[in-house]
Amino acid sequence: MKKVVVINGPNLNLLGKREPSVYGAATLDELNEWLLRAAPDLGIDLTFFQSNVEGEIVTAIQEAGSSDGIVLNAGAYTHYSIAIRDAVAAVQAPVVEVHLSNVYSREDFRHVSVIGPVCRGSIVGFGKDSYLLALKSFV
Amino acid sequence: MKKVVVINGPNLNLLGKREPSVYGAATLDELNEWLLRAAPDLGIDLTFFQSNVEGEIVTAIQEAGSSDGIVLNAGAYTHYSIAIRDAVAAVQAPVVEVHLSNVYSREDFRHVSVIGPVCRGSIVGFGKDSYLLALKSFV
Amino acid sequence: MKKVVVINGPNLNLLGKREPSVYGAATLDELNEWLLRAAPDLGIDLTFFQSNVEGEIVTAIQEAGSSDGIVLNAGAYTHYSIAIRDAVAAVQAPVVEVHLSNVYSREDFRHVSVIGPVCRGSIVGFGKDSYLLALKSFV
Amino acid sequence: MKKVVVINGPNLNLLGKREPSVYGAATLDELNEWLLRAAPDLGIDLTFFQSNVEGEIVTAIQEAGSSDGIVLNAGAYTHYSIAIRDAVAAVQAPVVEVHLSNVYSREDFRHVSVIGPVCRGSIVGFGKDSYLLALKSFV
Amino acid sequence: MKKVVVINGPNLNLLGKREPSVYGAATLDELNEWLLRAAPDLGIDLTFFQSNVEGEIVTAIQEAGSSDGIVLNAGAYTHYSIAIRDAVAAVQAPVVEVHLSNVYSREDFRHVSVIGPVCRGSIVGFGKDSYLLALKSFV
Amino acid sequence: MKKVVVINGPNLNLLGKREPSVYGAATLDELNEWLLRAAPDLGIDLTFFQSNVEGEIVTAIQEAGSSDGIVLNAGAYTHYSIAIRDAVAAVQAPVVEVHLSNVYSREDFRHVSVIGPVCRGSIVGFGKDSYLLALKSFV
Amino acid sequence: MKKVVVINGPNLNLLGKREPSVYGAATLDELNEWLLRAAPDLGIDLTFFQSNVEGEIVTAIQEAGSSDGIVLNAGAYTHYSIAIRDAVAAVQAPVVEVHLSNVYSREDFRHVSVIGPVCRGSIVGFGKDSYLLALKSFV
Amino acid sequence: MKKVVVINGPNLNLLGKREPSVYGAATLDELNEWLLRAAPDLGIDLTFFQSNVEGEIVTAIQEAGSSDGIVLNAGAYTHYSIAIRDAVAAVQAPVVEVHLSNVYSREDFRHVSVIGPVCRGSIVGFGKDSYLLALKSFV
Amino acid sequence: MKKVVVINGPNLNLLGKREPSVYGAATLDELNEWLLRAAPDLGIDLTFFQSNVEGEIVTAIQEAGSSDGIVLNAGAYTHYSIAIRDAVAAVQAPVVEVHLSNVYSREDFRHVSVIGPVCRGSIVGFGKDSYLLALKSFV
Amino acid sequence: MKKVVVINGPNLNLLGKREPSVYGAATLDELNEWLLRAAPDLGIDLTFFQSNVEGEIVTAIQEAGSSDGIVLNAGAYTHYSIAIRDAVAAVQAPVVEVHLSNVYSREDFRHVSVIGPVCRGSIVGFGKDSYLLALKSFV
Amino acid sequence: MKKVVVINGPNLNLLGKREPSVYGAATLDELNEWLLRAAPDLGIDLTFFQSNVEGEIVTAIQEAGSSDGIVLNAGAYTHYSIAIRDAVAAVQAPVVEVHLSNVYSREDFRHVSVIGPVCRGSIVGFGKDSYLLALKSFV
Amino acid sequence: MKKVVVINGPNLNLLGKREPSVYGAATLDELNEWLLRAAPDLGIDLTFFQSNVEGEIVTAIQEAGSSDGIVLNAGAYTHYSIAIRDAVAAVQAPVVEVHLSNVYSREDFRHVSVIGPVCRGSIVGFGKDSYLLALKSFV
Repeated sequence: MKKVVVINGPNLNLLGKREPSVYGAATLDELNEWLLRAAPDLGIDLTFFQSNVEGEIVTAIQEAGSSDGIVLNAGAYTHYSIAIRDAVAAVQAPVVEVHLSNVYSREDFRHVSVIGPVCRGSIVGFGKDSYLLALKSFV
Repeated sequence: MKKVVVINGPNLNLLGKREPSVYGAATLDELNEWLLRAAPDLGIDLTFFQSNVEGEIVTAIQEAGSSDGIVLNAGAYTHYSIAIRDAVAAVQAPVVEVHLSNVYSREDFRHVSVIGPVCRGSIVGFGKDSYLLALKSFV
Repeated sequence: MKKVVVINGPNLNLLGKREPSVYGAATLDELNEWLLRAAPDLGIDLTFFQSNVEGEIVTAIQEAGSSDGIVLNAGAYTHYSIAIRDAVAAVQAPVVEVHLSNVYSREDFRHVSVIGPVCRGSIVGFGKDSYLLALKSFV
Repeated sequence: MKKVVVINGPNLNLLGKREPSVYGAATLDELNEWLLRAAPDLGIDLTFFQSNVEGEIVTAIQEAGSSDGIVLNAGAYTHYSIAIRDAVAAVQAPVVEVHLSNVYSREDFRHVSVIGPVCRGSIVGFGKDSYLLALKSFV
Repeated sequence: MKKVVVINGPNLNLLGKREPSVYGAATLDELNEWLLRAAPDLGIDLTFFQSNVEGEIVTAIQEAGSSDGIVLNAGAYTHYSIAIRDAVAAVQAPVVEVHLSNVYSREDFRHVSVIGPVCRGSIVGFGKDSYLLALKSFV
Repeated sequence: MKKVVVINGPNLNLLGKREPSVYGAATLDELNEWLLRAAPDLGIDLTFFQSNVEGEIVTAIQEAGSSDGIVLNAGAYTHYSIAIRDAVAAVQAPVVEVHLSNVYSREDFRHVSVIGPVCRGSIVGFGKDSYLLALKSFV
Repeated sequence: MKKVVVINGPNLNLLGKREPSVYGAATLDELNEWLLRAAPDLGIDLTFFQSNVEGEIVTAIQEAGSSDGIVLNAGAYTHYSIAIRDAVAAVQAPVVEVHLSNVYSREDFRHVSVIGPVCRGSIVGFGKDSYLLALKSFV
Repeated sequence: MKKVVVINGPNLNLLGKREPSVYGAATLDELNEWLLRAAPDLGIDLTFFQSNVEGEIVTAIQEAGSSDGIVLNAGAYTHYSIAIRDAVAAVQAPVVEVHLSNVYSREDFRHVSVIGPVCRGSIVGFGKDSYLLALKSFV
Repeated sequence: MKKVVVINGPNLNLLGKREPSVYGAATLDELNEWLLRAAPDLGIDLTFFQSNVEGEIVTAIQEAGSSDGIVLNAGAYTHYSIAIRDAVAAVQAPVVEVHLSNVYSREDFRHVSVIGPVCRGSIVGFGKDSYLLALKSFV
Repeated sequence: MKKVVVINGPNLNLLGKREPSVYGAATLDELNEWLLRAAPDLGIDLTFFQSNVEGEIVTAIQEAGSSDGIVLNAGAYTHYSIAIRDAVAAVQAPVVEVHLSNVYSREDFRHVSVIGPVCRGSIVGFGKDSYLLALKSFV
Repeated sequence: MKKVVVINGPNLNLLGKREPSVYGAATLDELNEWLLRAAPDLGIDLTFFQSNVEGEIVTAIQEAGSSDGIVLNAGAYTHYSIAIRDAVAAVQAPVVEVHLSNVYSREDFRHVSVIGPVCRGSIVGFGKDSYLLALKSFV
Repeated sequence: MKKVVVINGPNLNLLGKREPSVYGAATLDELNEWLLRAAPDLGIDLTFFQSNVEGEIVTAIQEAGSSDGIVLNAGAYTHYSIAIRDAVAAVQAPVVEVHLSNVYSREDFRHVSVIGPVCRGSIVGFGKDSYLLALKSFV
């Protein structure tokens, strides 16, 4: 079994409550459970972390550094957190950046990802499927 | 009675000690007490929150999301915290941005508020009166 | 009684007729009358001026220079009139910048106020209450 | 008969005297008379306005707001007058932007029209025919 | 009879099928037929060319170089094709740039025309009338 | 069976020969065959198109407009082809943008995708798996 | 006798009252009288114009177009009035730009003169002597 | 004998007809014949290709990839064709960029070559001698 | 004895594990012990703080405000944390900015320090010696 | 007698030979002699310095630091020599910046003077009279 | 015999010692001797100048102004010396800009040549052959 | 003994005379003597060089290229001398950049060091101690 950690950033704890037309009606718990059900068939052992605090996400990435993969939705921090970028660059585990919505069709400041350049790859715009595709990328 | 939460960001816990000529001589506690004395006449039930941590402010805004109003002085985070912006945009409570000093007459990087566009309105430059005027805006 | 002058800039004479969903349904006359009714309780003696001509606003600010306060909605001139900025900086009366709508959530070119840096403060986004809060800031 | 107002901005009163190689040898009066002769066949009732004062152009647009069309050559104000832009956006009459010369082949600062985005359309570079084509666009 | 060539660029072959609210319900064939019907009265002998390929438009402009006029809607190439610009500058036939929609009220990258500066003039925003007005500009 | 078209842009015909360390050792034919083998299990009926010519890619997208999905690797055109963007926006089929390498960790001019904002989503950096994940996103 | 017109722009009517440390203690009337006393020796016949209204300055320049020289302190309009620039470029009289203070050592937006490029020359930073040196430049 | 391919881009087929004062009076055929006459003495076996179509130039570069050298005048595509840049970077043959005129003394947008950084070198401004010097650089 | 606090920011807890070729092989604990051994000879009483959380660094600076000096390596926050800048500006203790590597020879976004302007000085690029030199600067 | 030093920068030794239509037909020696003849009446004792070397101009300014005034035409160094700017700022003698031609109507890079902000004033565009007016400004 | 002067700028005296992999192993003396041997066959009488001092290069260009040609490698001054640009523009001799390495594939600040626009042409990237090709361009 | 050369740039010969509040009251000679007294204990053999001429500083760095270290205060040249940058990059001796004042808290154009990226490290803001700390960094 591969060990993969899913790390979600700020305001993703509001999933299902915040603009459902953009982010979908499922809560973060429901999303996590849906991924958990799919994980065994992919040979993946899944754990989850969410925080609104940039530095706690940095720490979570460091602690997941020896896993087989990290799925990272850094939320708004995607666009300015060089601290998270440095954490991604520092760990050995491959990191896949995901976003629920197509950030490139929203405000200009959401077109820049300071984290993307140090990730293995990015999957953007497929709703909760973004996470599932990220899991499949590790197989 | 309307329920309003006053949220203060980084370094505002130093109020009264930090550059009194710019920010006034009253401490944050004294400011809060002064607002508490004014609140009943405005029909407002007031609570307070302060943190230096961006993510804790995000959480505080989320938790105040069902109040009747939020008065937000995000301090330095005003100028770059898209995470706080997203929290403001996600909650139903109207948020009023306040600043003690006229940020537009200070350094260039203080001229941009990433939070302003998603607030109901902004009140800037009136010292502690900025907070009181914000309370009055909810009446 | 404090003497306060309310100065309105270009197109504000269309108030009530222009995009009522943005600017409200009240005409400029109705707004002025509403402020006049509130003024005595605030100990304020109120006069009004409106012009579409940049230079006439400059002159009006100069002539109100010895009053106890100026409430200024420079309309579109807010974003480029250095002439009005210089007039504000030249007079002794404190000037409060007001806007009906939240200019920061509109087009990019409305995010810059060349007048704000030389005003005492700014009140933005509260509809006609922006004017009333400005009056209260002088008390 | 459709009612159309032709509004000309700063320095267009110098037409025929100023750089005839660029702007043509006809004076503004001669241009207007030429348009007046063509108007009846197009079923258009034509009136004219010219001013060097930005705010007077704003007022003229407001006053022509209930006509069937406005032909606007805002001259130099084209490139920076948000006040005129707001007036154009505020009135119901469709506004057609015209220029005598091809502004896009002149100095860089003449390549931007802040008025264009809120006009129905633009006709640029055909000398006095720019005005005539604008009239025809209303038919 | 004057010989005029109408050259349409990429995706204009989709006319009538693509966002009819923006571009109108008529197909390119219908537009061309409508122009053909109007041409004789204007003393114009009309031919048409459309291609999605930038270089084929360059060639078409070169081949129309000895005609009495070219009506050019370069579509998306308007905003970046210096190759088409060079072709326009190289031929003797006067070129009139047209656009169906008001490109200045759309995305920022559509506000720049690299072709405009070397055209005789531009007609923008009048739907299919943009083409007709262009024809009339040659009369 | 869902009908999906895979469209590859300029220089992708060199796959396997061009910088294998970046793009992998498989040729485009081998990549296509690998996808063809995977398609039936995904219930996908797959066809392929490759061209170095921008306008031919525009046409290919138009012709695939009624399919159930398009996988688009526009190669270098990703960064400047507004013509391809317009084609993507004009068709009803959902388009998924893919890239073999992580374009965000390469030269600055590869960080901008003018096509991304009008795609359903983007999958970047997973080598040939980028294509497979794109196919899976349609299931 | 040479005929020279001195044209002063917005807020220069406040001279002597506005920031005397920057602009000197003399009023505009006193400045004008001082220049009048010096003019005869220079063989200059001097007249004066001041306005806060951009368009009235445009008109004044047009009306002084056949004089032997114009001394122009356009005040804040210096930095953005293309309308005044066009007027300067349109008249035959040579125009000399003057400023009381060294505008290049003040705010960034005062470093650009849109009028300078079409003037004969500029004299900046010598207080009221700037005007006198400008007069001498015509001799 | 070294095998060298000379590839010319858009509008170079107009050579001799387009602005002879800038580009010289010789046609492309005459230029090619002149080079052919010089080639044998340089030990060079010369072939030629010209197209107005960006993608055909990409293909031509790919097909010349195993030659001993490519002389490339990409014309207007020099300034924006990342597709051609990628083709140059992908082939083994050394590519020398040439231009007839000094592009650095023309419009700003001609100062950038996106192709230059991946070429072996550039020779700019020597008229038809630019091509001859490029041939000599391979000797 | 002078009281000095050494504050380290995000990812510096990975020292010795993260890119040893850039940051050296010593862990943060080993660095701290090395400094502790040097401190007595310099008459310095040393304490340490490390956090990945921006706001906790703000608080740490506030709490060290009455010490004799702060050595601050804010890590990635150096480049965007106005909150930390404000904390540095608010305290009386002189702050010396240090970096292990020469940040000016790395990515562009590492060339800007928003903290530097309010520090007493900066010492950059000397590996662990950067810290030692900072201590010596307080002597 | 006031002691004034005239310092000329690079290429001004070519005066009279270089583009006489722009810079006039007089040589630098003739200009200096013309100024020498005017100096006594102005009560000025004049000396001259010219160098093409930036650092020698720095030294010359330092050595003229105790004179009553410096007239400085720094030529091309005007636009980028912070070293000369620092020398001007360091000396007590007032420095007047002069230029023969109107630098604001030439290339963009000549519109910026890094020296202007630290000079007493600037006189630009009057040919050799620029120097004479500068001398008169010291009287 | 044509008289040609080869002028080399700063750090080119280190040739052969500085980064031989970039600049080649030959010293400047060896390069000059190699050129001297080739010159007679080209009918060229060659002299050399090298200096690290910007102003001495200005003077050298002035002194070579009546020669038949100047080969100029201005080294780092290429990117910012407007003084050298002005010297090149002032002399009658045609100037050919050369560089050993392909400056367009190095740091961004080396992509701009302020000297190129006033040279006859540029030859970049051919090592010492750049100089030889430049000599041949004069024949 | 290690051989270290201290190189000072333009206007540093004015030390002690120029803005003593910024740069200290000691002259350059006094600073050098103070460093000479400290050098023996550090095992350093110290020599000095100062020039206002950029190219002489380039030469001095080249000549110090085989020493054990260079302490370089390039003064104003820090911000634009790519020639000095190239010299620093070309020599083997490690170079430490020093500044007396905190250049990051002064004008914007002093925030950029073109020299910093190729130095071993930078020490900024400690007055004359900047030099002493630089010496200690070589020990």
